[in-house]
Amino acid sequence: MSAARAMFEKHGFDKASVRKIAAEAGVDPALINHHFGSKQKLFVAAMRAPVNPVEIVQRLAAGGPDKLGFRIAETFVSVWDSPAGSGLAQAMRGALAQDGMTVAMREFVTHEMLPAVASALEAPAAEKKVRASLVASQLIGLAVTRYILRIEPLASAPPKVVVDSIGPVLQGYLTGSTVATIELGPGIIQPE
Amino acid sequence: MSAARAMFEKHGFDKASVRKIAAEAGVDPALINHHFGSKQKLFVAAMRAPVNPVEIVQRLAAGGPDKLGFRIAETFVSVWDSPAGSGLAQAMRGALAQDGMTVAMREFVTHEMLPAVASALEAPAAEKKVRASLVASQLIGLAVTRYILRIEPLASAPPKVVVDSIGPVLQGYLTGSTVATIELGPGIIQPE
Repeated sequence: MSAARAMFEKHGFDKASVRKIAAEAGVDPALINHHFGSKQKLFVAAMRAPVNPVEIVQRLAAGGPDKLGFRIAETFVSVWDSPAGSGLAQAMRGALAQDGMTVAMREFVTHEMLPAVASALEAPAAEKKVRASLVASQLIGLAVTRYILRIEPLASAPPKVVVDSIGPVLQGYLTGSTVATIELGPGIIQPE
Repeated sequence: MSAARAMFEKHGFDKASVRKIAAEAGVDPALINHHFGSKQKLFVAAMRAPVNPVEIVQRLAAGGPDKLGFRIAETFVSVWDSPAGSGLAQAMRGALAQDGMTVAMREFVTHEMLPAVASALEAPAAEKKVRASLVASQLIGLAVTRYILRIEPLASAPPKVVVDSIGPVLQGYLTGSTVATIELGPGIIQPE
């Protein structure tokens, strides 16, 4: 696990490979694949994250765009309010503190998390990505404000209050007209 | 300055005092007050933040609640997109990485930043605080996503796209009906 963490810290998420990590740890790549199943799952384990956020989002996204923002808000708050929350907070603090892990976290969010959100939407690819990254901005902000900095009154607000406040915003980012009417210039369209 | 930083790290923002910091640094408290003017300004300097966010928000709040969310979004993006942005990103990473600075940042946001936002609103005190902390959650999330993790396409989106997307959300948190209709239970009302 420390070999995996060191590898992600050095190479980021994209360029790290199960094969390289296995070589570094002196074990068979098949063993790692057997235990973790994928680089995504290995990263989640290396970050000591107690849940796999990609799997959660994929499950939510499978329900389609209708009310997806509300479902994401509800699930996000219930997972972070659970005992798993402190592990997630530590994983996020670690990712923000070290340059190497910041890069790995960026690539993981960009290539594993955002596509899982975008998959639920019906829009041009570039617009889906803008919408998904806006959702990420509010969720990451909620995580930092409520669970890491613990800023009141948001930190102690009942889950329902938080979900009722954040849900409509996420839904707006996903399917609202505000983002849809934005002119998507070349600056915002990223290569696939 | 290092005495100030160490003091904030050890005691947080609330319990640190200009007098204690002066004693630690072996200088006259009057000298610190002359140079910095207040504990708030000393904290901003100790965090190596290139601008004073409290002064900026106070200026914006003075214009009243109408379109305040849009003005905050515009100013936030223009300051963080400016050369000052990398200094702010470093200050925020530092605050999130160390337990002591996390506490100091929490107290600074709660007791200096949020009241500056709340001062512009017309609502019961408890509701103003909820609204201000929701604004903080989206702004902190934007800072982490666009400027620290640099998640695409948000990281390279033209300022106008970001302002047009975030502005309505901030305005909704400040004066919209969604938050206003929330039943403010005892959990969310904090002692003054």
